[in-house]
Amino acid sequence: MHEKFMREAIALAVENARNLWGGPFGAIVVKDAQVIARGANRVTATNDPTAHAEIVAIRAACQALGSFHLEGCEIYSSCEPCPMCLSAMYWAKIRGYYYGNTRFEAAGIGFDDAHIYQEVAKPVEERLILGARLLAEEAAEAFAEWMRSAAKVTY
Amino acid sequence: MHEKFMREAIALAVENARNLWGGPFGAIVVKDAQVIARGANRVTATNDPTAHAEIVAIRAACQALGSFHLEGCEIYSSCEPCPMCLSAMYWAKIRGYYYGNTRFEAAGIGFDDAHIYQEVAKPVEERLILGARLLAEEAAEAFAEWMRSAAKVTY
Repeated sequence: MHEKFMREAIALAVENARNLWGGPFGAIVVKDAQVIARGANRVTATNDPTAHAEIVAIRAACQALGSFHLEGCEIYSSCEPCPMCLSAMYWAKIRGYYYGNTRFEAAGIGFDDAHIYQEVAKPVEERLILGARLLAEEAAEAFAEWMRSAAKVTY
Repeated sequence: MHEKFMREAIALAVENARNLWGGPFGAIVVKDAQVIARGANRVTATNDPTAHAEIVAIRAACQALGSFHLEGCEIYSSCEPCPMCLSAMYWAKIRGYYYGNTRFEAAGIGFDDAHIYQEVAKPVEERLILGARLLAEEAAEAFAEWMRSAAKVTY
């Protein structure tokens, strides 16, 4: 079963690269042994740097289920998720993921996954992209507003 | 100038929380001292766990510029980006980012940002979400297909 689903994710990745639709990445979301959504990389085709296969598949799966969580779901991805996609899996409460290629093999064909893993793990002030804090007191008001709301929808 | 832009991001966050449109997070993308896109958290409103303020703003900025990269752009976010949003900034080639609240303050009002930072930094096999490799040899075919293509669009 695992291999069948991974083969489908790999087939999406091969098709995507062959047709010049985007990077060589495909992913599917599975729940109760059924495929509920598919995704392939659409970064360059849609001018969307967040349109990685896993993100596309997670967004589609959430639409299919009418939920912002994917409890009990698993993702099969042709490549190890980058930190963006891995974090999206945590936000979506995915149960687990399977992958074919690794972040290091992705680096070998020109993708930044391994580099971004290194950067994310660093303290803000040691990263290559500048990050700085501003107006902490004023920003706290947004969180205070959230805490005051009894009707808020948490996630 | 920095403070003016940050105040706008904070205002988006406060408005979002007050109107129950989503979490208390707002972000704007600035290029050449002009706001080119805005975003607020829409996770619960749109059933999209990836619809964080920064992701919404990055996607909108890319549409506005007709590009999958945002070189020379900066993001002002009412809260420190989570690893998903930070990684999206790397993929988009953002120059820098400013933030108001921190990941630890976000944790204090119930959001998982700090937890996900810890998870992303761990080796695959030590994370709380199961990750496992499958069919490495077959997956390599997707990367080989990519390398064979002379017409591919890299990013």
